[in-house]
Amino acid sequence: MIINYKKELELAAKNMIMVHEPDLLIKMIARTIVQKVGIKHAGILLHNEEQDSYILNVSRGAKGIKIPAGFARIDSDNALIRIFKENKNNPFLEDNSFIYPKIKKIMDNYRYPPELKELLNQAMYQMETFDSIACIPSYFRDDLLGLLLLGAKTDNQDFEQEELDFFTALASDVSMAIRNAQLFKKLEEELQKKRRLFINTTVALAAAVDAKDHYTHGHINRVTAICLEIAKKMNQKNKKTFDEKFMDDLHIASLLHDIGKIGIPEYILNKEGPLNEDEREKINEHPVIGVTILQPINELNEAIMGVKHHHERYDGLGYPSGLKGENIPLIAAIISVADTYDAMTSNRPYRKAMTKETALAEIEKQIGKQFHPLIAAVFVELFKEGKI
Amino acid sequence: MIINYKKELELAAKNMIMVHEPDLLIKMIARTIVQKVGIKHAGILLHNEEQDSYILNVSRGAKGIKIPAGFARIDSDNALIRIFKENKNNPFLEDNSFIYPKIKKIMDNYRYPPELKELLNQAMYQMETFDSIACIPSYFRDDLLGLLLLGAKTDNQDFEQEELDFFTALASDVSMAIRNAQLFKKLEEELQKKRRLFINTTVALAAAVDAKDHYTHGHINRVTAICLEIAKKMNQKNKKTFDEKFMDDLHIASLLHDIGKIGIPEYILNKEGPLNEDEREKINEHPVIGVTILQPINELNEAIMGVKHHHERYDGLGYPSGLKGENIPLIAAIISVADTYDAMTSNRPYRKAMTKETALAEIEKQIGKQFHPLIAAVFVELFKEGKI
Repeated sequence: MIINYKKELELAAKNMIMVHEPDLLIKMIARTIVQKVGIKHAGILLHNEEQDSYILNVSRGAKGIKIPAGFARIDSDNALIRIFKENKNNPFLEDNSFIYPKIKKIMDNYRYPPELKELLNQAMYQMETFDSIACIPSYFRDDLLGLLLLGAKTDNQDFEQEELDFFTALASDVSMAIRNAQLFKKLEEELQKKRRLFINTTVALAAAVDAKDHYTHGHINRVTAICLEIAKKMNQKNKKTFDEKFMDDLHIASLLHDIGKIGIPEYILNKEGPLNEDEREKINEHPVIGVTILQPINELNEAIMGVKHHHERYDGLGYPSGLKGENIPLIAAIISVADTYDAMTSNRPYRKAMTKETALAEIEKQIGKQFHPLIAAVFVELFKEGKI
Repeated sequence: MIINYKKELELAAKNMIMVHEPDLLIKMIARTIVQKVGIKHAGILLHNEEQDSYILNVSRGAKGIKIPAGFARIDSDNALIRIFKENKNNPFLEDNSFIYPKIKKIMDNYRYPPELKELLNQAMYQMETFDSIACIPSYFRDDLLGLLLLGAKTDNQDFEQEELDFFTALASDVSMAIRNAQLFKKLEEELQKKRRLFINTTVALAAAVDAKDHYTHGHINRVTAICLEIAKKMNQKNKKTFDEKFMDDLHIASLLHDIGKIGIPEYILNKEGPLNEDEREKINEHPVIGVTILQPINELNEAIMGVKHHHERYDGLGYPSGLKGENIPLIAAIISVADTYDAMTSNRPYRKAMTKETALAEIEKQIGKQFHPLIAAVFVELFKEGKI
C-alpha cells in the first residue's frame, strides 16, 4: 500500500488541533490509523491523573477483534508503563517504540539483567492481552501522556520503518492534541459552571425579593418559565430569530423584572385592600427602581431595558415611559404578557384569582391594546397546546 | 546549513499547540524561522475578520531590518492577497508559495494575460515594500488566514526545495495553531466576562438589600473590602495560604453576609431606638435566613457557611450555632471582625458612631474573646498601616 505519510500526518494534525472534544479526537485518531495503515485494531491508553492509571479509551478495527472501550485499565506501575517511564531511550526500544516481535527476537539472543528481563516479559504478556504488537508512547515534556496500541497489520506483514516513523510523529501530535482538547473542555466546563452559578444566584436573590411580596409567591419562576416558552415558540415559528444572547437577556430580565420592589415599603406591598393613588404611584416606581439597582452592570443593558419597560402597553398608555408599539423592547413586551397573566391568575388580598380561561380571554381582548399582537398570539397558542 | 526539518517541524508544532496566547505564538513562530533557517527577517500577515484586512503582527530579525509590528496593514483587495485568493493552484505559485525571484524570471519569459501581469506586478511591488522574497499562504479550509513573509537568507542564497517544504508545512500548522489560540483566548475572555457579571450582579443585588437597612448605607462594600484586605495580608504573611476558590468564596460571602435581612420586617430594621428582646431575636435570625435563600446554590457551599456563622464568637458565645474557636469557618471569622468594626464606626438610630480609634481599641480588647486572635491581629496591623 502506498501512502504519503507526510501528507497524512499534516492532515491528521490539522484536524486534531481543531477538535476540542477529547473522546471524539481519540476516536478519529484510532480510525485514521486503522484505515490508513491497514491495521486490525488500534487503541489509546490515556493517562488519568486523578486515578494515576492508564485507561483504554477506544479501540477500533474489524468486527470481533475490537477491544471494548473502558474494558481495560492498567495501573501506572504496570510493566508496560514502567518500560516507558524507566527505560526511555533504552536501545531495546526502537525510536522509543515497543515492537513485540523485535523484542521477542532480542530476548532470545541477548542477556539482560534478570529484573529487566522479567519486566520485559511482563510487558509482553500485557501486550498479548491487548492483542497488540506495537506500542508507541506519547510524551508531553517528561510525562507519559499515553500509549498508542496497535494490532497486527491486516496483511500480517511486519511494520515498515516509514510506518513506524509515521506512528511516532502521530503519537507526538496526538498527545499534544489531547492535552489541548482536555484544556479546552476544562475551560468550557468552567464557563458552563460560571453560567449556572450566575443564573442560580440571580434566581435565589430574585426569589428572596419575591418572597417579600407575600401574595405572589412563586411569581418570578412562573413568569420566567412562560417568557422562555414564548421566545422558544417564536423561534420555532421563525417569526423572530433570537440568538443565545437574547435568550440569556430575557432569562435574566424575567427573573429580575420585579427586583425594584425591594425599594417599595412593605406596608404597600402587603396592604390588605386596594391601593390608593399615592400607593399606586409608589408601586409603579418599581421598574425604575429596578433600573437603578441594575444600572452598574454594563453587561445587562438589554435585560435592564426589559425590567424598565415591562409595564408599557402596546397602545402607549403604560408606564414609566409611555412607549408605544414596536418601540417597546421585545424582552419587555414578552414579560408584560407573562407577568399580567400570572397576576390575573393569582389571589390578591382584595380579589380572588381569575380562572385560567378568564385570564386567557382577557389577554385575547387586549391583543394590540395592552399587548404586542405577535407575542400575545403566541401566548394564546401555547395556552391552547396546554403548555401554560 | 544542515537542519532536520522534520524534527524542527515536530518540535514547532508541539510548542504551538500548547501556546494559547496568539501574540506570543506568532512571535515564537517568527523567531523559529529566523533562527533555524537563517533568514534576515520574518513576519506574519494575519487576517483581521472585523476589519477584513491583513495586519503585520510581528517581524523579527537582525537590527535595522525589522519591520515594526503594527506598521503595516493591507486590505483584502490588495494584490498580494488577491494572488492567493484568486489564483490558488495557479502554476506560477510553487507549492502555493509566491517566490519573488522565480516570479520575476517567469514574468520575463512568459506571456500572461495583461490583468494577471498587472496583478503580479502589484504583488511584487508590495513584497518589495516588505523587503520580502517569499510569501507562503496559510489556509483554514478555504479561508486565507494569513501569509508568512520571509526576507532573504542571511547568506543571500536561494531557498532550497526542502526549506520551502518546511515553510509550507509550518504555515499550515501555524494557521491551525493561531486559530486554536484565538478560540482559546475567546473562551478565556468569556469566562472572565461571566465572572465579572456574576460578581457585579451579586454586588448590585446585595447593595439593594443593604439599602433597606438605612443606617448602614455602604456597609456591604466596606465590609467586603476589609475582608479581602485581611485575607490578602494573611496570605502575604503566609500565616495561611488561601487559594483562588477561598478568595472567591470570601468575596461572595462578605457581599451576601446580610442578605438574610431581606426576611426581617422593615419596622425592626429601621426602628429608631434600641430593640426589645423579641425584635433582637428576630434580627438574629438573619444569618439563618441568608442560608435558606442561598441553600439551592450548590457551588456556594463554603460561602454559605461564611454567611451562616458570621455572628459566632471565638469564645463560643455567638449565634446561631455557638461554634467555638477553630470550629468557626475562617470565612465567617474574617467577616465577623470586618462586620463588627464597620458597625461600631457607623451611626445607629440610638447611638452615634464610635471614632475609628475607639473601635480599634474595642477590637483589640476582644482578641481571643469575640474574635479569632490571628485574624484580629492582622486587622490591627492593617489599621496601623492606614489600610483600613
